[in-house]
Amino acid sequence: MDSLRIGVAGLGTVGSAVLGLIAGHRDLLALRAGKYLEITAVSARAPDKPRSADISSFQWFDDPVALASSKNVDVVVELIGGEGGPAKKLIETALANGKPVVTANKALLAHHGTALARLAESQNLSLAYEASVCGGIPVVKGLREGLAANAIRELHGVLNGTCNYILTQMRDTGRGFDDVLAEAQALGYAEADPGFDIDGIDTAHKLAILTALAFGAEVDLPSVHIEGIRHVDALDIAYADELGYTIKLLGIARRAGEEIEQRVHPCMIPKTAAIAAADGVYNALVADGDSVDKVNFVGRGAGGGPTASAVVADLIDIARGHKSPVFGIPAAQLKKLKPRPIEKRYGAYYMRLMVVDRPGVIADVTSILRDQNVSMESMLQRVRAPGGNVPVVLTTHETEEARMNAAIAQVAALDAVVEPPHLIRIEQF
Amino acid sequence: MDSLRIGVAGLGTVGSAVLGLIAGHRDLLALRAGKYLEITAVSARAPDKPRSADISSFQWFDDPVALASSKNVDVVVELIGGEGGPAKKLIETALANGKPVVTANKALLAHHGTALARLAESQNLSLAYEASVCGGIPVVKGLREGLAANAIRELHGVLNGTCNYILTQMRDTGRGFDDVLAEAQALGYAEADPGFDIDGIDTAHKLAILTALAFGAEVDLPSVHIEGIRHVDALDIAYADELGYTIKLLGIARRAGEEIEQRVHPCMIPKTAAIAAADGVYNALVADGDSVDKVNFVGRGAGGGPTASAVVADLIDIARGHKSPVFGIPAAQLKKLKPRPIEKRYGAYYMRLMVVDRPGVIADVTSILRDQNVSMESMLQRVRAPGGNVPVVLTTHETEEARMNAAIAQVAALDAVVEPPHLIRIEQF
Repeated sequence: MDSLRIGVAGLGTVGSAVLGLIAGHRDLLALRAGKYLEITAVSARAPDKPRSADISSFQWFDDPVALASSKNVDVVVELIGGEGGPAKKLIETALANGKPVVTANKALLAHHGTALARLAESQNLSLAYEASVCGGIPVVKGLREGLAANAIRELHGVLNGTCNYILTQMRDTGRGFDDVLAEAQALGYAEADPGFDIDGIDTAHKLAILTALAFGAEVDLPSVHIEGIRHVDALDIAYADELGYTIKLLGIARRAGEEIEQRVHPCMIPKTAAIAAADGVYNALVADGDSVDKVNFVGRGAGGGPTASAVVADLIDIARGHKSPVFGIPAAQLKKLKPRPIEKRYGAYYMRLMVVDRPGVIADVTSILRDQNVSMESMLQRVRAPGGNVPVVLTTHETEEARMNAAIAQVAALDAVVEPPHLIRIEQF
Repeated sequence: MDSLRIGVAGLGTVGSAVLGLIAGHRDLLALRAGKYLEITAVSARAPDKPRSADISSFQWFDDPVALASSKNVDVVVELIGGEGGPAKKLIETALANGKPVVTANKALLAHHGTALARLAESQNLSLAYEASVCGGIPVVKGLREGLAANAIRELHGVLNGTCNYILTQMRDTGRGFDDVLAEAQALGYAEADPGFDIDGIDTAHKLAILTALAFGAEVDLPSVHIEGIRHVDALDIAYADELGYTIKLLGIARRAGEEIEQRVHPCMIPKTAAIAAADGVYNALVADGDSVDKVNFVGRGAGGGPTASAVVADLIDIARGHKSPVFGIPAAQLKKLKPRPIEKRYGAYYMRLMVVDRPGVIADVTSILRDQNVSMESMLQRVRAPGGNVPVVLTTHETEEARMNAAIAQVAALDAVVEPPHLIRIEQF
């Protein structure tokens, strides 16, 4: 049986797991791939660092770009990471040298996906990236091959395990954001510099990739509306629970004619929504296809094993000679869709105010909403503290975000409203 | 752009939906497939029956087998159904004539899957069957390509929408089995002759296919342990709810060394289990891979649109030239695994007894369990009716089924036990 000779650049958690997986399942993988998967070359920053995998039999490259032009390598696995620099150079060199590429690099694809797809397709080569979104859950293949017969109407996903862990812990323990974040950092679920995750950037990278794939659009990261979870308060989580909702950081994309809506922000979703079942470090993606209706994929979105599972699945596709356009349709045909501004979002809202507890305040607030044509669905004022400050929670029926913004600005300006209003979008999936 | 010329045999709900889908998404499908998908020939029982799709431009065949050898057909879609007869003849003829096949026929694959896979592979042709299991949810591609890097440890699924609808309705309304079945029949969710669904046979067909795919085993329908849902009582559903469980008809497969366990029966599962979220007509599959851990797929398991989605996805694979071994590894390498008898099942049990309410009965029952080394987890006797008959519910810790059977036989023989005991297996996923 032939071998597919693999060069792996980057030997961190995922790279080591890929080496371990391929060594541990040599015969099974050969049956499934029709070829032996054989690591022939590796590259990493430190050749002598202690590693779980024995790399002594592989050719070592100090320079990953040199690995990408090696004669002993049929396919390059890029696990260096980062939106440019050596990872981009490596992939471009591999493709220029006629070698297909497998990558887990969502930042790179979110920034340069369209150009890299064009390059790969001009060379008639695969650029595979199952590992870049939702780790081990096969959502890229799920959309590209599994739901290929559908025009996708909408997709939404829990795409970042760190945020989902933090929000789940806050809900289950009643603790505050800073406290839970510190714990997540101690457990290794959050980075020392957590902004990339908790400010929604990682989710936006993944959403931009999924949007291109699902809607046949160019990858368009700059037009994603991004909000993170720093402002989600324990109080909002408690109120959400009382109202029958749970709070998740979601990536949502929807095509509306020639406009594309892409947004990342905390959402209140019904506890019974399919996506609500993905708690803790789990990821999930719901895709709504016009023939299939809603399909939900749930599993582990990060970690060595799950991510290696996705990398090796892509290698098996390449060994079998399976080749699809990178984003499902030829890169030259990807449309440049007009970003739909968040102000046009049409939906329900949760608003929490901190107000002085005195007669007339609620009347002032509800008058403003009425004047903006925003229809109220519910109002809660559980705590009484005459003359003091109390939280008041309102939910609205569906309305346009621009109207809501106008109302909020007026509400915030009321004397009796002593903090900037907290707003969370409600999604009725 | 080239065309893939498609012959469709069978124009019921699914066949009509396939025609509609291909006509409605001509350009999108061509971009995704790299070829136009073009229906050229059809066959069905009645040429003049009123249909939603206009079939006047397609070549008509009274005999589907003649369609399978037509020069105007590159690929055959088999939507006739049935475990033998014309469907089998059609597929064999198509493969013998060098044409790949797409089928939705689970009964046929469950009975003849290994032989048909060998035939297809000897001709180097695809035999694609995404539509045969879980309708529009891409579980076949999910296992075969998505989780291809994993040794699958276990899988379990809600594979029959009719049973799931009935059990969900019983739980949500408190009504009895016969009542809900009649309603499901009126709504078209259950057949006039419902045995195929409610006796677990359809679930067993799907499980046998998934087992072959997941574990690299020959399709072995006869060794599947099958129980249906006729004996699930409204009382059991109420007790399950009280104990924190929900009742689902599951297909479960697990490899234990050279033994393979395949079973279909009602299960009590924790309400928090991933698979518990699939209610009503939804299907779900959880696959547990050694690298990826558990992945859950949820969606619509039946109906024209979802099933057509799966059929057309397979056609796109064929248009792209993607070809995998039918069951993930070459058919010649599929193992004949030894069936693991249900008596070796190790797990917890729920037992409901109808007993005469008098002192000493519970002591007799618990003594029998103790003597069989079955450890009790809980006992409930909510109703009192001294001298009359009352239900008593027991749950056990994990034990072997053979022991449980021995205990049940002795319990059933007690004078005070007035009905055959009701037993439901508990699965702690």
